[in-house]
Amino acid sequence: MKIFAFAGSLRKDSFNKKLIRHVADIVRASGHDVDLAEFNEFDMPLYNFDIQTAQGIPQGAQKLAARITAANALILSTPEYNYGIPGPLKNAIDWLSRMTPQPLRGQFVYLCATSGGPVGGHRGLWAMRPPLEGLGCMVYPDHFGLGGAPTAFDEQGKIKDATQAALLDTQLKGFLKYAAALNSGH
Amino acid sequence: MKIFAFAGSLRKDSFNKKLIRHVADIVRASGHDVDLAEFNEFDMPLYNFDIQTAQGIPQGAQKLAARITAANALILSTPEYNYGIPGPLKNAIDWLSRMTPQPLRGQFVYLCATSGGPVGGHRGLWAMRPPLEGLGCMVYPDHFGLGGAPTAFDEQGKIKDATQAALLDTQLKGFLKYAAALNSGH
Amino acid sequence: MKIFAFAGSLRKDSFNKKLIRHVADIVRASGHDVDLAEFNEFDMPLYNFDIQTAQGIPQGAQKLAARITAANALILSTPEYNYGIPGPLKNAIDWLSRMTPQPLRGQFVYLCATSGGPVGGHRGLWAMRPPLEGLGCMVYPDHFGLGGAPTAFDEQGKIKDATQAALLDTQLKGFLKYAAALNSGH
Amino acid sequence: MKIFAFAGSLRKDSFNKKLIRHVADIVRASGHDVDLAEFNEFDMPLYNFDIQTAQGIPQGAQKLAARITAANALILSTPEYNYGIPGPLKNAIDWLSRMTPQPLRGQFVYLCATSGGPVGGHRGLWAMRPPLEGLGCMVYPDHFGLGGAPTAFDEQGKIKDATQAALLDTQLKGFLKYAAALNSGH
Repeated sequence: MKIFAFAGSLRKDSFNKKLIRHVADIVRASGHDVDLAEFNEFDMPLYNFDIQTAQGIPQGAQKLAARITAANALILSTPEYNYGIPGPLKNAIDWLSRMTPQPLRGQFVYLCATSGGPVGGHRGLWAMRPPLEGLGCMVYPDHFGLGGAPTAFDEQGKIKDATQAALLDTQLKGFLKYAAALNSGH
Repeated sequence: MKIFAFAGSLRKDSFNKKLIRHVADIVRASGHDVDLAEFNEFDMPLYNFDIQTAQGIPQGAQKLAARITAANALILSTPEYNYGIPGPLKNAIDWLSRMTPQPLRGQFVYLCATSGGPVGGHRGLWAMRPPLEGLGCMVYPDHFGLGGAPTAFDEQGKIKDATQAALLDTQLKGFLKYAAALNSGH
Repeated sequence: MKIFAFAGSLRKDSFNKKLIRHVADIVRASGHDVDLAEFNEFDMPLYNFDIQTAQGIPQGAQKLAARITAANALILSTPEYNYGIPGPLKNAIDWLSRMTPQPLRGQFVYLCATSGGPVGGHRGLWAMRPPLEGLGCMVYPDHFGLGGAPTAFDEQGKIKDATQAALLDTQLKGFLKYAAALNSGH
Repeated sequence: MKIFAFAGSLRKDSFNKKLIRHVADIVRASGHDVDLAEFNEFDMPLYNFDIQTAQGIPQGAQKLAARITAANALILSTPEYNYGIPGPLKNAIDWLSRMTPQPLRGQFVYLCATSGGPVGGHRGLWAMRPPLEGLGCMVYPDHFGLGGAPTAFDEQGKIKDATQAALLDTQLKGFLKYAAALNSGH
């Protein structure tokens, strides 16, 4: 399968970019292709119906949609901003939702996050579910939230804590198994 | 496949019981078995850790768990109480969550609702997702909410409005296709 | 002012009962009356419209409503069950919502929680807000979640961790100031 | 009192801009000042920690913060995008949250919405609560969602439906009464 993955942060040294690179390594080691993008590649303005009417869907949103559509499944690592989805990521989802065909419909999605606090961004991941599910994504039930981001990774970018590392492995294995079933089954 | 279905209401003449009977008919007509239960069959007290310690998991919760475990997928029709899950249904989920193995883990679930208002109980369905997903259910992204319950069904128990009826058909078809893929794939 | 307080757990040795007793002490030391109840005092069946029709609102729900109505503000300490409100507590809210006049409308509420995990039950508190706000409660924005419940209290029932204790004090002070303003202002 | 109000849409002919102008008229007729802004006045980029580090908080976010801080209470009319907060509005909240002092803390907020569908954007309003409350806003429990936006207003910009108009009046009266109490009480 081909898995499209990116972290929903624009920050160059984002911990979620670190996490998604680690996740991509695990998925590749499982024998799958990963199309790993940077959110920064998909430049787009704040959503405004008047811009859509005058200029159409921005190039950045179209590129993002094409990468999603070309994949068998989607993995997102995303920070939590103020108990919810980061504004820039919700903005990208809002642009995607205006396209026909709508690129998120029918996608199978795994969510993960890391944050500096003890909780690991779980609230942000819960907030991601309604827009994704409302747009027709099947979201894998388990998600992964890694606390203590600044000290959580070793020099090779791997998760130091063995329990957390094993949990991520288990969840990814489960996600890929389901993704294979869903992709063969229809 | 065998689909386990019930409405999350204890009321004898519940509109959600009407809806789940109609859904069961559609699923049976698609060539699948439906194990249609009444929520009232699963008698259990309000969750109290002291009861669990003294008497174990109540019979009603054990029977509910057995019916869930014996099925390939799960369909729930549930009213919305106060912008959320009905207390009695959340209570049943709370009892289920204390069992080992936990019966909801790995289940594939379709949610629907009907209500007297124009909205059709969508908020209650959104509120159902976090407990189910947190317990390891994969919840089908689309859900069905039928407004105007008292006049929405004809004498055979079918949905009168053609658009709503077609929407339910489409969603059930999609759910059953995914259910088949997930059940064959692992 | 008179503050009505209880913990939303039926368990005899509930950590949330420990927390609400500590909160009650703080509020009393601020010069206010506290009506501290046990949730177990308010016996009521699982909500069923047929029971309501045949027997009316159960005594337990009526007693709970009377205690709420007699108070100037409300403090709840509640466990998190499965990423949401405990079924028994939601069940009580559902019964209250069927009474006329509806006793929660216009109440000013402070929410707190404790749990064994590191997070302190915050998700359960977030889940409490929609039913309470939808029923017309003004919920104080800050809420308090105390992790590590089994070892969090000293022998006098006080919170050991100074930072957490100070946070609770600050939030309660803010809540009581607003409660006084709201009660004098209308 | 001075009430700061704006609609969380960048679209020139936004129905939510229509609603907020109508709300502003009602509030002014109640004897209060309204500072009515357009969201478009507060230009700011997609949130990026690197931009914050290099250039500080953008002028647009600073202007928005100053208008919020100068007011006694806040009224927002906001569309629902994909079952949640519009990305651009969440983006503005994310920028505001990075300022010291944080301008939303302690604000008292009323939420309303209008949309083309029958539901009136209620899900978007529910999604607004966690970020606002998490940042320390007290959000008025009742909110107003007006369906059928394209035909809901008369030529003077008033709501045609008498029941809906009366509901909005009642809610605004309640909000302003509480706002006065909160502003005098601390």
